[in-house]
Amino acid sequence: VTTEQAARKGTASGDGNPGSRWLSGIVPPVCTPFNEDGEVDAASLERHLGFLIEAGVHGLFMLGSSGEAAFLTDAQRDRVLELAVKTADGQVPVLAGVIDMTTSRVVDHALRAKERGVDAIVVTAPFYARANHPAEVKLHFRTVRHRVGLPLVAYDIPIAVHTKLDLAVVLELAAEGVIEAIKDSSNDIHGFRALVTNTRQFEKLSVFTGSELVVDCALFLGAEGAVPGLANVDPHGYVALYESCRSGDWDKARRIQDRLVRLFEITACASPAKKGASSSGLGGFKTALMLRGVIAQNTMGLPQIALDAKETAAVRSVLEREGLL
Amino acid sequence: VTTEQAARKGTASGDGNPGSRWLSGIVPPVCTPFNEDGEVDAASLERHLGFLIEAGVHGLFMLGSSGEAAFLTDAQRDRVLELAVKTADGQVPVLAGVIDMTTSRVVDHALRAKERGVDAIVVTAPFYARANHPAEVKLHFRTVRHRVGLPLVAYDIPIAVHTKLDLAVVLELAAEGVIEAIKDSSNDIHGFRALVTNTRQFEKLSVFTGSELVVDCALFLGAEGAVPGLANVDPHGYVALYESCRSGDWDKARRIQDRLVRLFEITACASPAKKGASSSGLGGFKTALMLRGVIAQNTMGLPQIALDAKETAAVRSVLEREGLL
Amino acid sequence: VTTEQAARKGTASGDGNPGSRWLSGIVPPVCTPFNEDGEVDAASLERHLGFLIEAGVHGLFMLGSSGEAAFLTDAQRDRVLELAVKTADGQVPVLAGVIDMTTSRVVDHALRAKERGVDAIVVTAPFYARANHPAEVKLHFRTVRHRVGLPLVAYDIPIAVHTKLDLAVVLELAAEGVIEAIKDSSNDIHGFRALVTNTRQFEKLSVFTGSELVVDCALFLGAEGAVPGLANVDPHGYVALYESCRSGDWDKARRIQDRLVRLFEITACASPAKKGASSSGLGGFKTALMLRGVIAQNTMGLPQIALDAKETAAVRSVLEREGLL
Amino acid sequence: VTTEQAARKGTASGDGNPGSRWLSGIVPPVCTPFNEDGEVDAASLERHLGFLIEAGVHGLFMLGSSGEAAFLTDAQRDRVLELAVKTADGQVPVLAGVIDMTTSRVVDHALRAKERGVDAIVVTAPFYARANHPAEVKLHFRTVRHRVGLPLVAYDIPIAVHTKLDLAVVLELAAEGVIEAIKDSSNDIHGFRALVTNTRQFEKLSVFTGSELVVDCALFLGAEGAVPGLANVDPHGYVALYESCRSGDWDKARRIQDRLVRLFEITACASPAKKGASSSGLGGFKTALMLRGVIAQNTMGLPQIALDAKETAAVRSVLEREGLL
Repeated sequence: VTTEQAARKGTASGDGNPGSRWLSGIVPPVCTPFNEDGEVDAASLERHLGFLIEAGVHGLFMLGSSGEAAFLTDAQRDRVLELAVKTADGQVPVLAGVIDMTTSRVVDHALRAKERGVDAIVVTAPFYARANHPAEVKLHFRTVRHRVGLPLVAYDIPIAVHTKLDLAVVLELAAEGVIEAIKDSSNDIHGFRALVTNTRQFEKLSVFTGSELVVDCALFLGAEGAVPGLANVDPHGYVALYESCRSGDWDKARRIQDRLVRLFEITACASPAKKGASSSGLGGFKTALMLRGVIAQNTMGLPQIALDAKETAAVRSVLEREGLL
Repeated sequence: VTTEQAARKGTASGDGNPGSRWLSGIVPPVCTPFNEDGEVDAASLERHLGFLIEAGVHGLFMLGSSGEAAFLTDAQRDRVLELAVKTADGQVPVLAGVIDMTTSRVVDHALRAKERGVDAIVVTAPFYARANHPAEVKLHFRTVRHRVGLPLVAYDIPIAVHTKLDLAVVLELAAEGVIEAIKDSSNDIHGFRALVTNTRQFEKLSVFTGSELVVDCALFLGAEGAVPGLANVDPHGYVALYESCRSGDWDKARRIQDRLVRLFEITACASPAKKGASSSGLGGFKTALMLRGVIAQNTMGLPQIALDAKETAAVRSVLEREGLL
Repeated sequence: VTTEQAARKGTASGDGNPGSRWLSGIVPPVCTPFNEDGEVDAASLERHLGFLIEAGVHGLFMLGSSGEAAFLTDAQRDRVLELAVKTADGQVPVLAGVIDMTTSRVVDHALRAKERGVDAIVVTAPFYARANHPAEVKLHFRTVRHRVGLPLVAYDIPIAVHTKLDLAVVLELAAEGVIEAIKDSSNDIHGFRALVTNTRQFEKLSVFTGSELVVDCALFLGAEGAVPGLANVDPHGYVALYESCRSGDWDKARRIQDRLVRLFEITACASPAKKGASSSGLGGFKTALMLRGVIAQNTMGLPQIALDAKETAAVRSVLEREGLL
Repeated sequence: VTTEQAARKGTASGDGNPGSRWLSGIVPPVCTPFNEDGEVDAASLERHLGFLIEAGVHGLFMLGSSGEAAFLTDAQRDRVLELAVKTADGQVPVLAGVIDMTTSRVVDHALRAKERGVDAIVVTAPFYARANHPAEVKLHFRTVRHRVGLPLVAYDIPIAVHTKLDLAVVLELAAEGVIEAIKDSSNDIHGFRALVTNTRQFEKLSVFTGSELVVDCALFLGAEGAVPGLANVDPHGYVALYESCRSGDWDKARRIQDRLVRLFEITACASPAKKGASSSGLGGFKTALMLRGVIAQNTMGLPQIALDAKETAAVRSVLEREGLL
């Protein structure tokens, strides 16, 4: 069995190698292409999923921040998961973000995702309401796990939920078997090192970085993998980066990563005078995918604003400079 | 016709008095009582709504932060609105919070609320995703208004959504007729004064404070009313405060407000070592309502944690000291 | 004896009136005029102090944020205090900001100020270093008081020092007699109300707001006075506002305050693309004083950037509109 | 000539190796030992400086955050520099922090430091006042450089000054020759990677991390060295870490760094209920130095609170566990 197949079956071998964990490797947070009228563009999404799988990614994270989960209605979320499970067809695990404010709402999403056959769910700390005491955060994750029963990835994304997951909370949930993995999108490298170092004792806990820009450092420190939004645009680059790290060729890894850092400039092509960070960042991904011929257009979920012609030209320049067009 | 009836019909007379605006007065953000199993306790909710209406409140704001909107499933939200519209029965307007992350999700909630017969919807800035550029915030409110067609109250609550509504954005939306009112829960008294002063030109824009503690100041500055969570517990107090302000008896207003400030201590009876700010604050309201015999129990939406016996005793002491038991 | 003379002698009468406290009224945080070469312009400062005293202000706060204390060398600070004590000549009390990072440095400044004959010192929480635990904040104020021996005003300015003074800390220090007064520049109206309400028990504790924009509200709530930077430019307006509040004419107070709110636009005439908040705000004050003929020029302490011709014209327009030119 | 000697003479060879830059290696931010009465303990400081130099550190940074610059009077700062220059005696360069709020005050400190013979000064962005527009930050550094004339290290420490140095500002100042080096204490690994990558074009700009915990990552990314507070306690460890990185033995580097991460627990031995972050962190360093026999006692600058007996025992346990006692 391959690592991915093992992962899907939960057969962690526990031999101490990263590959033996529940999941490892590059797991892109998959973008959700839209039609002009703002509905999910099924053909584009299937094409995009195929593009990623062919490039060798190790899993698919649907309905994350890069997937515009926050912008999708419940019906649209259902549709995305159905398409992903069908297209993945067991080749790689499908993870589903179940992004919502508190426990009952998250459970509702998770049960809908489970019905559609996903392999795991990805859950943040509560947000909007200030129910983020460690006791409440633990109650949240435990309740979701208990009511849903699927493998659970904790999603540490303070920029969105305004709560950082405490290391002690993560360790306790991992020890109880409530969480199988954690995706760290906090850009706190000190916290990340502590996380990796302290979770080595849990054979089944996989630590992923949500960063696009320091995947080499994260893997050097011992992480199992990465969930980089930019892997939507250059999955081959991130797979190559992962393999270089796994083989211990750190100099090569750094060179690949440096190139990907330059490519990340596509997220800064929009004018800050005209639109916000989400429009600029996710808009950069979607515009690049459109220019690479993977998806049909770069429409964004409202109230985001799609990149205009001038901004699109800037994205094109970056792609050309980095040899992706 | 009474002010409230005029308000419900949108017949602002434009004579420059606060009472002529779309809505004015005390509009409690109504708590949502739960059964032990976490479902909406219909009998308690009806009793609570009756308690508020009898006390003379001028409107009912369902599914706000104090109503634990963030903790309710869609089915529970529907249920709350059905009970409120039925119980209010046209005596006072019913406003519905449609709290969600971005435009399409908010519209879905709003259309469900509209079907249930509410008089207006209450909408925050986008959250979770960073789609909070002024252009995006305006697009958000305009789209919701256009697709839903109900009167719209802008809800400025940076502590929850981490975006402050710009004064310029509010003025532009008011001038366009996109918003009928604003609830300011930002605790920025400078911004509030600027808001009140600058919106006097719009006959139909009602400015409400979301504060429990400076309603006297807010009305002194020219606000139309208040949406104080504590009015769940002491609606008579807030109605009396409002009437003192309207009659220009500022000394009496301050004395009533000072008493309500002391009563607000019920929100600080929980141990910060055991639970978060939401459990403590909303838990204080619900526990007081239970002790006053209005609702059956003080269960909280998960992952909040209800006040325990010791904390409940502390709430009781405050209620007794202030003559509410 | 007048209130001010009583204040200077510390003869609080304890009859429960605000006037009986250590200090009350309008105490401008006096701007520091510079020559072109960045040295203190003694003639302009003396003229400015005379302008304020003649307008009837109740005290002078030298070397506060508006006085650019952060931008002055120790020698310049000495010079400012010498000029202030000489010019005030016992007519009103002179307070000296002793702004620095931690205890020993503050004590050094305070002893220099004491030698120059000031009536009181104004002390913030520690900053730069994270020595802001309540125990440390209390140790800081106690040590300064003990080593210096002058009346001490606590200066609560989180925007500068990034620590909010806890109400409990303030109450404890007031009860011990460590602080005579507090200047609250936190723009936290809830905290301010709690402060005023809870400190009424201390006959000798004077509560001042540092706000320019809600002096009417602050006095309505029971504060003894205000330390508004804008009183540099329109001391007559603030003295009139104070007197209206003291006589209970709240409607007149609000009208005066509303005019002062409009005047405050002089602090927003600079281009945010070209300079920061300090240059814009203090630059607005200095430019207005220059245009009113009180000081010779609007030079700022480095690295602030003085208002240019276009920005100066914008300040002039506001002054003209409000009848100050 | 050695690297350090070259560095002191500013003879960067420009051959593209990190060693050819102005300065590279481990440059501890040296602690300042106090007597019981809070004065500088000269004997302890000389012993400590000797301990560091013998361990092979590549420079000495006096009067940084770890040196309690914020807690020292001007006279004490002078004393520290005199002792450092005398003890270093040309063996390694001596850098002096000139920490103060704005330009004129920083220049005053810098001229005093220059008189005492230091090799370079270390300057933060302005703080306390909001004079932190990029134009103002640049004016600040340029003015200090122009008036003082010594090599200048930019110190990026947002946790203290609440301003992050923009990459564009740093690049512009480096291109102009205003700054020779930068110490990045921002714990922003994305920003750090961008900084290192973009400054490779400047032969003479040295990039240092201020982190104790990811020196291996920082050097992997291309930094010239580190300024870790923990190097006060274990200079041999950091020098060995640096040499492993320079020789490309990343696995060894990571093992050493992992040990130093565990050692860093000495900064978390104090009770957060009793004292703040500075007391706990710097107190951990000083207590460890006392236990290792390097300095006489662990007195802290006021209002910090020294570690008590129980907290000291916790530090001892960590030192014993890591083989440093």
